[in-house]
Amino acid sequence: MQQVAKRNVIVGQSGGPTAAINSSLAGVYRTAIDRGYKKVYGMLHGVQGLIEGRYIDLSEHITSALDSELLKRTPASYLGSCRYKLPEIFQDKELYEKIFKILEDLEIDCFIYIGGNDSMDTIKKLSDYAMLTGSDIRFVGCPKTIDNDLALTDHTPGYGSAAKYIGTSVKEVIRDGLSMRNAKGLVTVIEIMGRNAGWLTGASVLAKGEDCDGPDAIYLPELDFDVDAFVEKCRNLLKTKNSVVVCVSEGIHTADGKYVMELGENAEFVDAFGHKQLTGTARVLCNILSSELGCKARAIEFSTLQRAASHCASRIDINEAFEVGGAAMKAADEGDSGKMVVFVRTSSDPYAAETEVKDVHKIANDERLVPREWVTEDGSYVTPEFRSYVDPLIQGDVSPVMVDGIPRHLYKPGYQELLEQS
Amino acid sequence: MQQVAKRNVIVGQSGGPTAAINSSLAGVYRTAIDRGYKKVYGMLHGVQGLIEGRYIDLSEHITSALDSELLKRTPASYLGSCRYKLPEIFQDKELYEKIFKILEDLEIDCFIYIGGNDSMDTIKKLSDYAMLTGSDIRFVGCPKTIDNDLALTDHTPGYGSAAKYIGTSVKEVIRDGLSMRNAKGLVTVIEIMGRNAGWLTGASVLAKGEDCDGPDAIYLPELDFDVDAFVEKCRNLLKTKNSVVVCVSEGIHTADGKYVMELGENAEFVDAFGHKQLTGTARVLCNILSSELGCKARAIEFSTLQRAASHCASRIDINEAFEVGGAAMKAADEGDSGKMVVFVRTSSDPYAAETEVKDVHKIANDERLVPREWVTEDGSYVTPEFRSYVDPLIQGDVSPVMVDGIPRHLYKPGYQELLEQS
Repeated sequence: MQQVAKRNVIVGQSGGPTAAINSSLAGVYRTAIDRGYKKVYGMLHGVQGLIEGRYIDLSEHITSALDSELLKRTPASYLGSCRYKLPEIFQDKELYEKIFKILEDLEIDCFIYIGGNDSMDTIKKLSDYAMLTGSDIRFVGCPKTIDNDLALTDHTPGYGSAAKYIGTSVKEVIRDGLSMRNAKGLVTVIEIMGRNAGWLTGASVLAKGEDCDGPDAIYLPELDFDVDAFVEKCRNLLKTKNSVVVCVSEGIHTADGKYVMELGENAEFVDAFGHKQLTGTARVLCNILSSELGCKARAIEFSTLQRAASHCASRIDINEAFEVGGAAMKAADEGDSGKMVVFVRTSSDPYAAETEVKDVHKIANDERLVPREWVTEDGSYVTPEFRSYVDPLIQGDVSPVMVDGIPRHLYKPGYQELLEQS
Repeated sequence: MQQVAKRNVIVGQSGGPTAAINSSLAGVYRTAIDRGYKKVYGMLHGVQGLIEGRYIDLSEHITSALDSELLKRTPASYLGSCRYKLPEIFQDKELYEKIFKILEDLEIDCFIYIGGNDSMDTIKKLSDYAMLTGSDIRFVGCPKTIDNDLALTDHTPGYGSAAKYIGTSVKEVIRDGLSMRNAKGLVTVIEIMGRNAGWLTGASVLAKGEDCDGPDAIYLPELDFDVDAFVEKCRNLLKTKNSVVVCVSEGIHTADGKYVMELGENAEFVDAFGHKQLTGTARVLCNILSSELGCKARAIEFSTLQRAASHCASRIDINEAFEVGGAAMKAADEGDSGKMVVFVRTSSDPYAAETEVKDVHKIANDERLVPREWVTEDGSYVTPEFRSYVDPLIQGDVSPVMVDGIPRHLYKPGYQELLEQS
């Protein structure tokens, strides 16, 4: 695409935070500046904030190379995130006109959105609208999700760091359990994020190595969960082990489609996208185990910690997140629109991956699940293929910038107030 | 004390695991060998395992300097732990005779026990028995507890690493909360260990710095907790902030002595020492907040993670834990018995501390709480004095030995089976 003079770029973050999403933001910024764009705006709280006219000039926040390094080590969405789904174009044309008016006023050439499958829906709709109305603005998606469930890409930035944290923490919990002594045995049930996709829970296998047996069982939400078989499995494990550790996805459900957490009495919430908000799966299972087996049972939820633990990030992941931000910016700069950057793994051992761009229409709202053949026959563990897949994604460390004993994050005066004026 | 030929040493670990307790074990071993003892035995699962004749020869486990370094980076009790309280001597003299027979058979000169206040009760009773019966065996305690509640010592090994993990993770959770957008506001309630002592919960203040506001409120168990005042505090905070983060001790209780978790419907367990097992404080508070204020409320329990996170250990803490193990061994070697090693802080800025030995009778079964003047008038935060106290204890990092992207722990063939034959 020929362009006489480059104007501005706007970038946003959407969906659940990760430890790597800000590295992609840093990548977008760097490439936009390198390619000669004048300003790089950041939407505050994604497209929802943009509609309200809330954005910043990123050059006021990334003022040095050190800032950029700090941003790569800062967890959660620096720009603020949202879980906002645009209406269909025919449902609210005025809203689209409003958004494009704001973009034109800001002299935007490229719109980069960092997010997961719900966020790619935003790229799809805005690029459709641009095409329908003949706008020159290019809309490109940058993948991000700890859930690792985006279609057409080998993996997503954010997943590797969450997987590394999960492997590390599961291993520490296993050691902790091993050291305690319980007359009737102890079962620790660790609850890991993942509504429908078991990528994160499967990563608990990373705890297994020369110095650790790893979890004793791993249950993903892709398969129906059989409560009786689970109890029998634990009963058998307790015959030879004093401490048993089981990892389960928050989204495991019985054959009739009922979430395991619903077997308890906890309340049920639904988010803006209609997803059920799940908590308490591990607790429900612990109650069942202690009453059925008479053992001690403890529930551990990795909760928000697993998506925010930038202190335990994967170097591969942080670097790839930066790279994918640059690739999204490059694609938009070179004229792509309605696309998302994906990873293609060109070699597993040694690991090598390249970025490509794919049609966002084939990605938005889709979900990539763990293949059935990567789960054992009886559904209680992942196979060596799963391990080979995830292993390269957690390699290498990112040394936090430690100040007074605590990792330093990027912060500019007034930053918090900016995010809170919503 | 004059001794013709040094014989053997036995060391045990007791009570809740920490990220630093194995560093003390490494310190005991090193000093015992350096001082010319022949063998260093390790009790499996503390004195409870010893009574059953379960112990190992540590030289088969620490076979190199690398092993020693790995041990310092291995969380939880390498030797296995127990929560076992010896009966009073007059209640079961036979048991004491049995223990001393085992120690004599093993030709033990020094008995080192690494643990908290309950474990120091064991040192007290065994050293009393030795004195009563004219035994030459010396019994010395080595302090360990993330709770930091031992009397007569400035702080306890294990606390610094747990504090560093808590400060780091609270900061990451705050960033996570800041990035999300919630129409009615979000309150995150983080539940931190501590039945009666608020040292760990107070450490959440470490999240506060140039780049982070820190938690919005901190509630320790030393003071009565006023639910209504808490709700009003959150109501006021939500007027200016979209995301509020509150840290609470698991042990907070109302003025009538009722634990906050008992305000919910969760079951109640009692451990071998008669302590109530608490969970669900944060969840109870979240339920109250969401019904009273209509806000979104999420509960996060740091649970076992906070005591096992050796991947985020404090260098000061790991080094001091090693040092205190050596000091306990040195004291026993030089004839002390019925003592525990303590830290005396000789300077706060720059930080400096020395070890001394104190009478274990003045330590066992006692609890050191956070001074009232280190909590603000209204009881909802800690003062700068608290911060100055904890700051030095989290300084410096211990680089994990990363193998295939995951921290490596010490493990010898058959190790797990050893611990599990109970």
